[in-house]
Amino acid sequence: MSSELDARFLRACRRQPVDATPVWFMRQAGRYMPEYRRIRAHHSLLEIVERPELAAEVTLQPVHALGVDAAILFADILLPIVPMGLKLEFAQGEGPLIHNPVRTPEDVASLRELEAESDLGHVLEAIRLVRRELSGKPVPLIGFAGAPFTLASYVIEGGASRNYIHTKLLMHAQPQTWHALMDKLAQALTGYLLAQVRAGAQAVQLFDSWVGALSPQDYACYVLPYSQRILKAIQVTGTPVIHFGTGTATLLELMKQAGGDVIGLDWRLPLDQGRRLLGDDVAVQGNLDPVALFAPLPVLRQQVQDVLERAGGLPGHIFNLGHGILPHTPVEHVKAVVEMVHEITAQ
Amino acid sequence: MSSELDARFLRACRRQPVDATPVWFMRQAGRYMPEYRRIRAHHSLLEIVERPELAAEVTLQPVHALGVDAAILFADILLPIVPMGLKLEFAQGEGPLIHNPVRTPEDVASLRELEAESDLGHVLEAIRLVRRELSGKPVPLIGFAGAPFTLASYVIEGGASRNYIHTKLLMHAQPQTWHALMDKLAQALTGYLLAQVRAGAQAVQLFDSWVGALSPQDYACYVLPYSQRILKAIQVTGTPVIHFGTGTATLLELMKQAGGDVIGLDWRLPLDQGRRLLGDDVAVQGNLDPVALFAPLPVLRQQVQDVLERAGGLPGHIFNLGHGILPHTPVEHVKAVVEMVHEITAQ
Repeated sequence: MSSELDARFLRACRRQPVDATPVWFMRQAGRYMPEYRRIRAHHSLLEIVERPELAAEVTLQPVHALGVDAAILFADILLPIVPMGLKLEFAQGEGPLIHNPVRTPEDVASLRELEAESDLGHVLEAIRLVRRELSGKPVPLIGFAGAPFTLASYVIEGGASRNYIHTKLLMHAQPQTWHALMDKLAQALTGYLLAQVRAGAQAVQLFDSWVGALSPQDYACYVLPYSQRILKAIQVTGTPVIHFGTGTATLLELMKQAGGDVIGLDWRLPLDQGRRLLGDDVAVQGNLDPVALFAPLPVLRQQVQDVLERAGGLPGHIFNLGHGILPHTPVEHVKAVVEMVHEITAQ
Repeated sequence: MSSELDARFLRACRRQPVDATPVWFMRQAGRYMPEYRRIRAHHSLLEIVERPELAAEVTLQPVHALGVDAAILFADILLPIVPMGLKLEFAQGEGPLIHNPVRTPEDVASLRELEAESDLGHVLEAIRLVRRELSGKPVPLIGFAGAPFTLASYVIEGGASRNYIHTKLLMHAQPQTWHALMDKLAQALTGYLLAQVRAGAQAVQLFDSWVGALSPQDYACYVLPYSQRILKAIQVTGTPVIHFGTGTATLLELMKQAGGDVIGLDWRLPLDQGRRLLGDDVAVQGNLDPVALFAPLPVLRQQVQDVLERAGGLPGHIFNLGHGILPHTPVEHVKAVVEMVHEITAQ
């Protein structure tokens, strides 16, 4: 047990010195890996996440193949909205579609409360299986959930969006409905993340992937209180929380205020500037451009080195991308980055 | 002539006091307007831009319908690449497609030099027609071009992109090829914009719409010198230049260094913060969220007021959106914003 608490990933979350900078990748399990494609050939995405033994297997694939310092549960941020009453489909090549989007007070009122233990028991069981497999290894398991804004954007738009017209319209033109929806989402997500922690997740990440579409004014008024409620509830358990978004250069101070032991940065803000902006009472995660993984190894190495130099060798840095691994990323480059980070930062 | 130089739009570009804040909208001519749809029913986009009398008519539609303080030439940022040898198609619902994308040294070498006067004479003729129509009116005409990075991203990717994989890969893995391409684009765009000025454009905007995908390091090394070359060439003519991008919170200081009398801001950075960051030796343009135009008028008015309050009544503010008008935007709301801005800021 003590070796697990001493894992460099968890130490970095707590801004403690580490023997080498920990590294993991958002979307480290997925289509770019042949092992994953072999499983996907026989099972849909929803089948994998609904069958704990498959979800656990996929979760562990990058741990074995890449040597990353943390596992992240294989799941989808949209899972909690299904038991809440939304009709979700992963359409071929189109991303997620929600057939009954939420746009009225009645739509919000009809959302069911999430009972994580019964509604998403398969996710929690996958966590238990992964923890058993990783027992005694210095590779902690990260649980996660979508943040309320990012989930709200999907359920209001009915899928992925470019301009968030319906989302922002609900926010501004029907603020009561917006707040009611965010309240329900925050409650559901708090329960879901706490259940993940009880099942064995050793850290959790809140993905506010699309929050960069908002102005700071809108974030402060319509989003911050709900993310804050979730983050505080996790932090009282002592479990480290990573608070992540993209395109957030103008939101970072508010995101820190909302909470998180670790703030995720994308590549648009150099890591040294990000640390200066955030102060030294919070750790940072990031921030290699996912596209860098396509470059020849010497070019890739330069970019990895740049990130590490900007991190400045200070405690409290978790190496990651600025966003998830892209389809068609060469696996051997991902593996090479793990080795580079460990080699360059080894004390 | 003196009345035209005194137009509030041009005065604001020069940071001179104005009788009311000037307002225009990126993509103010387009599908959201019934007048435009009537013309599009009979002509393709390329037909309109290739027939000066149609392009001029469409350019003037929002001037008549909305009362904006500037006209912007109706054209497309991709026009200059066609005579350079790229096979461009505007595919139904898919946006622009380039059938022979540029990805090798040979591709770059085979690009033709642009001769703006002969290759894009129809655009210059449209400028002359619009100027004739606006003669004596205090409504200046803005010319424009895409910035070299944004154009490079289209010609390398072969169309619009989400992650700019080929673009960034060319930049990092084949820097010589990248620089050769940017050099050719910068030369073409400088000639094109200078020709627009000679034809009568009274200000020009350089659209670096997608530059926000880059880190500041990449911008400084691979983009800034080329945008700078163009911007300096225009500025020596005394014609005001607006330098625009989106998602640029971490790039603004470098964009100012590259040049421009006016820097465009999107809604992610509050206007007062943007002005503080940029200093008072440059004007700013922006920065209402285009989605705000869908909100009920009282909500829209609050947001317009917020932008104006943050502008602080100082000289050197041009009211605009943070990006182009979206399809389906209610025309009457756009018109209402023009009236609000004039009414609220009238001295």
